[in-house]
Amino acid sequence: MREVPFIKGHGTQNAFVLLLDPDGALELDPGTVAALCDRHTGFATDGLIRVVRSAALPDGKELAEAAEWFMDYRNADGSTAQMCGNGTRVFAAYLERARLARIGADSVAIGTRAGVKHVRREGDLLVTDLGPWVLVGGSEAAAAGNDATVEIGAVPLTAPGTPLPGLSVDLGNPHTVVALPDADQLAAADLRTLPVVTPLPVEGTNVEVVVPLHDATAQVGHLAMRVHERGVGETRSCGTGVVAAAVAARVWGDAAAPDVWTVDVPGGRLHVTLPAGDRLRGESAELAGPAALGVGGVLTALP
Amino acid sequence: MREVPFIKGHGTQNAFVLLLDPDGALELDPGTVAALCDRHTGFATDGLIRVVRSAALPDGKELAEAAEWFMDYRNADGSTAQMCGNGTRVFAAYLERARLARIGADSVAIGTRAGVKHVRREGDLLVTDLGPWVLVGGSEAAAAGNDATVEIGAVPLTAPGTPLPGLSVDLGNPHTVVALPDADQLAAADLRTLPVVTPLPVEGTNVEVVVPLHDATAQVGHLAMRVHERGVGETRSCGTGVVAAAVAARVWGDAAAPDVWTVDVPGGRLHVTLPAGDRLRGESAELAGPAALGVGGVLTALP
Repeated sequence: MREVPFIKGHGTQNAFVLLLDPDGALELDPGTVAALCDRHTGFATDGLIRVVRSAALPDGKELAEAAEWFMDYRNADGSTAQMCGNGTRVFAAYLERARLARIGADSVAIGTRAGVKHVRREGDLLVTDLGPWVLVGGSEAAAAGNDATVEIGAVPLTAPGTPLPGLSVDLGNPHTVVALPDADQLAAADLRTLPVVTPLPVEGTNVEVVVPLHDATAQVGHLAMRVHERGVGETRSCGTGVVAAAVAARVWGDAAAPDVWTVDVPGGRLHVTLPAGDRLRGESAELAGPAALGVGGVLTALP
Repeated sequence: MREVPFIKGHGTQNAFVLLLDPDGALELDPGTVAALCDRHTGFATDGLIRVVRSAALPDGKELAEAAEWFMDYRNADGSTAQMCGNGTRVFAAYLERARLARIGADSVAIGTRAGVKHVRREGDLLVTDLGPWVLVGGSEAAAAGNDATVEIGAVPLTAPGTPLPGLSVDLGNPHTVVALPDADQLAAADLRTLPVVTPLPVEGTNVEVVVPLHDATAQVGHLAMRVHERGVGETRSCGTGVVAAAVAARVWGDAAAPDVWTVDVPGGRLHVTLPAGDRLRGESAELAGPAALGVGGVLTALP
């Protein structure tokens, strides 16, 4: 293996290993990616991010005019992924550390398989615009507060196995959001396996379980959330899931429901800003949160 | 930070990051060690091993005559540890990979805080002599099969909270071994917290929960085992714990009980050979198992 600069980083404990490959020379087959992300022989991460110049991609000339750097995101199992909300902040933090880009009040553009995303700095936090998003069931679902039902294991509600109302939100990837009445129920929920979602979308769904923590007059909404990511299991955080949770919670609220939300996940705290007005769809959804860079160096040996 | 060669490795999923420091120039404070082992910013390992020449240690001249290389083992919390059974195999595998030692039928000597240990190769496995060991309660405990009682959470025995008989085995570190009747009980045991051991040794104890899988005429004993390591929680494997389990199971057996044991832990399979004869103490206990080397390179940035 050639010598490849690497760094490990995480955003609210979604962990990634980043490999610097400016000229797109690195061949990464799924087996190599899985070994690099492996718990025991690799970096024990949720994914791998190849940092490559857009111009070095096979059809990247046009993209390069909008975004100099491309986030080639791979899941821990070696498959490719469209996007990763928490990953964009770690990607941007690395560009800054490696002096490949500056991030200030003006945003840096990042190419992804889901289009160009913009990341800017706000104090200690990095802010990514993850939009667009849409309430899958539209106005009917908004009126009913429900376009799916969800059964979650081990939640000690009065009637075990009672299906709970869920709202479906699409952010390029599918989400189903369910509200529970209190933190005890949230803590008890068994999210190791996918809850039973009816109807289940053909492509599957992430499931976000939330508990509202704010009072009715709050200017900023506040949710506690846990998440089951499809094909992965319960994770410490999910950026698009946090946005979906805020979208659903605003629909469930009254006319004065806030547009700005703080969402606590097991891995830390994130913040969502939705455009005022239309609650059924939006072109923008800003996710703010931390990004931490960890061990780094030059990789010379693969597992 | 100076450039430090590193490699990640594991033995039955006890994972380590090894740092090559032949001249003993590396200062590793507990905070740095903890950051390097950290789940999110570091290598996500159970410990760190500094690979240093014995001659480079402050008082290492004498040791260097017995063992050229010293395994400076640190726990994931940054504290130092005497020894790590699974770590010795990964240490030896690294010495071989880095062409710092040859390992064949003749063993390589490794300096540790618990004295010089010898590792040799047998086919795909590496074999470490972890002895000496002693049955803490001596012949009285052996006759009774019991010198402590243990209460384990969530084990579905007929009477919940029933104390189970335990045997105390010392391998330089303390162990309490408990037998359960079947695999279902083993799977159900809650080892996230330390079971209640009475009397509890002042220095605490590791607790090994085992189920015998062999029939009475077997030449090789066979155990399934899970372990709670003191100060850590449940782990995927524990080398000295596996030896303690074999020592206890032989005591519990009849006069024809085997001296050779296969022990299945969540992280894989290990093999123990005890000296024939005295079941109360021994100077030798051979632990055989795999060692896998993973990602490696040169470290230039700390978390």
